[in-house]
Amino acid sequence: MKNKQIILITDFGSGSYYQNIMKGVISGISPESSVIDLFHDIPPQNIKQAAFLLLKTFTCFPDDSIFVTVVDPGVGTNRRNLACQIAGKYFLAPDNGILSYLTDEYKVDFAISLDNSAYHLPNAGNTFHGRDIFAPAAAHLASGVNLKQLGSEIPIGSIVKAEPLQEIVRIDGSITGEVVLIDSFGNIVSSINGTTVYQHFDDNIVIGLRENRISGLSKTFADVEENEALAYIGSMGVLEIAINCGNASKIFNAKIGDLISVSH
Amino acid sequence: MKNKQIILITDFGSGSYYQNIMKGVISGISPESSVIDLFHDIPPQNIKQAAFLLLKTFTCFPDDSIFVTVVDPGVGTNRRNLACQIAGKYFLAPDNGILSYLTDEYKVDFAISLDNSAYHLPNAGNTFHGRDIFAPAAAHLASGVNLKQLGSEIPIGSIVKAEPLQEIVRIDGSITGEVVLIDSFGNIVSSINGTTVYQHFDDNIVIGLRENRISGLSKTFADVEENEALAYIGSMGVLEIAINCGNASKIFNAKIGDLISVSH
Amino acid sequence: MKNKQIILITDFGSGSYYQNIMKGVISGISPESSVIDLFHDIPPQNIKQAAFLLLKTFTCFPDDSIFVTVVDPGVGTNRRNLACQIAGKYFLAPDNGILSYLTDEYKVDFAISLDNSAYHLPNAGNTFHGRDIFAPAAAHLASGVNLKQLGSEIPIGSIVKAEPLQEIVRIDGSITGEVVLIDSFGNIVSSINGTTVYQHFDDNIVIGLRENRISGLSKTFADVEENEALAYIGSMGVLEIAINCGNASKIFNAKIGDLISVSH
Repeated sequence: MKNKQIILITDFGSGSYYQNIMKGVISGISPESSVIDLFHDIPPQNIKQAAFLLLKTFTCFPDDSIFVTVVDPGVGTNRRNLACQIAGKYFLAPDNGILSYLTDEYKVDFAISLDNSAYHLPNAGNTFHGRDIFAPAAAHLASGVNLKQLGSEIPIGSIVKAEPLQEIVRIDGSITGEVVLIDSFGNIVSSINGTTVYQHFDDNIVIGLRENRISGLSKTFADVEENEALAYIGSMGVLEIAINCGNASKIFNAKIGDLISVSH
Repeated sequence: MKNKQIILITDFGSGSYYQNIMKGVISGISPESSVIDLFHDIPPQNIKQAAFLLLKTFTCFPDDSIFVTVVDPGVGTNRRNLACQIAGKYFLAPDNGILSYLTDEYKVDFAISLDNSAYHLPNAGNTFHGRDIFAPAAAHLASGVNLKQLGSEIPIGSIVKAEPLQEIVRIDGSITGEVVLIDSFGNIVSSINGTTVYQHFDDNIVIGLRENRISGLSKTFADVEENEALAYIGSMGVLEIAINCGNASKIFNAKIGDLISVSH
Repeated sequence: MKNKQIILITDFGSGSYYQNIMKGVISGISPESSVIDLFHDIPPQNIKQAAFLLLKTFTCFPDDSIFVTVVDPGVGTNRRNLACQIAGKYFLAPDNGILSYLTDEYKVDFAISLDNSAYHLPNAGNTFHGRDIFAPAAAHLASGVNLKQLGSEIPIGSIVKAEPLQEIVRIDGSITGEVVLIDSFGNIVSSINGTTVYQHFDDNIVIGLRENRISGLSKTFADVEENEALAYIGSMGVLEIAINCGNASKIFNAKIGDLISVSH
C-alpha cells in the first residue's frame, strides 16, 4: 500500500528551496510518500492566514493526509512542535496558533508535543525545524509510525490560540469581517462565512469594503459585465469580492486585515 | 500498473493554492497518479497562450498523459467542459477555444461534454470548476474510467475556436507573426513556425520586432557576443528572439501580441 | 523497487515551464521516478550560486538521488555535459563549474561526458539541453542504466572549475567572505563556514556587512528583539545575517557578491 501523502503550507515563499529540502528529508525516510505544496506564500509570520487556509481547504484532501504547516517566528525557542489528528487527517505545526481554528471547530482527542528526538534529524538546529523536526516527524508518520510515538501527550487546552478572525454579527443583523487573503487573481477573500450570510440576509444585501459598495450576491463571475465588481460565496465557502476579468485588490487597494461589511 | 499522470496548465499563478487543491481532489480519487504542474502563469484569461503552449509541448509527455487546462473566464456559465483524446493523450478544458489549436492540427474522433455529475464533486459550485469538475474527471480517467462515461458525446465541429495566431505569408515571401509568450529569461517566443521560415528563406533573412532588426538565424546563444540580440528556432519549434545572457523582452520592451516579421 | 528520484536545480525561474517539460521527458522514460524541484531561482547564469546550493544541500537527500543542475549560458557550444557519482549520489550538469565545489571537497572516481546520443532525445537541439540531454540521461540512470553507458569517461582534472567563493582568513584571524544568496525571507547567506568561525573566534565577535556591524552570534531569531539584526550559523552550516521578523536584504540593501567580515 502506498504511504500517506504529506501536504505543506509555509511562509517560505513559493520559489524557495526550504520546502524542497524538507522533501529531500521526507524522501529519505518515506520514499513512497508523495508531497503536495499546498501554499508557500503565506505572508511571513501571518499565523491567522495559515490557520484559515488550513481550516478551509483540508477537507479537499483524502483521509490520512498529513498536513505540515510551518509559519514559525518562534523557531528554536521553547515553543512546542505539535501534532494531532482531526477529522481523519493529521496536522503538524508549531504551537503558535496555527492549529487553533481547527481545534475550535473540530473534535480533537489528544495532541502530541514532538519531543521524541529519536524522530528528529540528528543534530537538529534552532533555525529550521521544518527540515529538522517536522519533515522527519511527518515522514515517519507517513511510513507507519504511530502518532503517540513521536512525543509526549499534552492537554488540548494548552495549545496556543491564534487571534480569532473577525466575523461579528450585530443586533441589526449586519456582519463585519476582515480580508484574510488576496488570491492570485486579486480576488479578495473575507472571513465571513457564506452560512452566516445566508442566515441573516436574503437577496437584499450590500457588501462594503472601505468606501466601495457592491449590491447583491452573484453566483458566478459572468453575472456582471467585464471590469465590474461582484460579491459571491467563493470556493472556500466564504464571502469574496472580485472584478470580472480584473484585479479587485488593485482596483480597491485592499489589504489583508481591511474590514468588510454586509448589511441591508 | 501505475495510473496515468495528469498535467496541469492554468492561469492561477505559479504560487497559487488553487492548483494544489485540485491535487488534493485528484489524490483522493486516484492516489497513484502523479501530477505535473506544466505552467500556471498563463496571463489571466489568455486563451491563445494556453492553446499555443498545449500544442507546442504536449508531445514531450508520454502516451495516455491527461492534460487539464483551466483558463476559464466563463466558469459557471453555460459554456461546456470538454474532454477528448488526441494523438494518444487526453485533454480536458473549458469549451472556450483552448483545445482548438490542437483540434485544428490533429485528428479527433469524438469529444465529450463533462456533464455526468456522478463524476463531479458533490455540490459542485460556480466559481472553481478546476476543483469541482476537471480534477475529479481527470482523476477518474486516470484511474481507469472510460472517457465516454464522463459525459455526453458532442460534435467536434461544435467546439469553440480560439482566435487564430498570426502566421501570415505574403506574396513576396515575407512572414508576419506575433509574440505569443515571454519566457522566464525574457526570451520572446513568436507564432512563426521554424518550418515556415525554412520553407521561404535561406540564410539571407532579417527578423523585425518594432524598429529593431536582427540579421540571420543563430543556432545557439553563444553564436553572438554577450548582450547581443539573436533570432533562432527555439525548443518549441518556433522563431524566438533573445539576448545572449540578457533579457530581450526588457531591452526591446516587447509585449504579448506585438508583431514580428521575417523578410529578406 | 521504486526508481531513483531526480532533483532539479536551474535558473529557469520557479514559475517557468522549462523544468516541467523536463519532467514530461523523464516521466516517459522512467515513469516511477519522482522529481523534486529543489530551486529554480538561481539568478540567470549564476554558476557560483548553483554550485554552492548543490554543495550545501545534497546531503539532505537520500543515497542514489540524481541531481540535475542546469545553469547553462554555453548551451549548444562544444562545452561538455557531465555526469559523475559523488558520496553516493549522482550529479549531472554542464561542464561550466557547477560541479567543481563538490569535486573539490569530495572524492570522485570518474566522470562521464554525456556524449552517447542513444540516450539523448532524437533530434536534440542547441538551446535546451535540459530537455534534450539531461532529462533523458537522468531518467535512464533512474531506471537502471549504468552511468558509464551514458557516455565516455573523462579525466576528473579536466572538469571546468567555478570561480571559488571567498572565505579568506587573515593573519589576525579575521575572516572575509561574500554574500552568496538571499533567501525568501531576505536572510543574507554568506560563504563563511560555521566551522571556520568557531575555529577562530569565541563569543567575542563582530560581523560586518558594509557599514553595518552586528555583535555576537545568536542561536535563534528570537534571541534578539523584533526588527533587530542578528548573525547566526544557519541551516546550511554557514554564517547568515537576518532581521527577526524583518527583511535583512532590504534593510541593508545587500547584494549577491557583497563582502562580509568577521572580526574581534
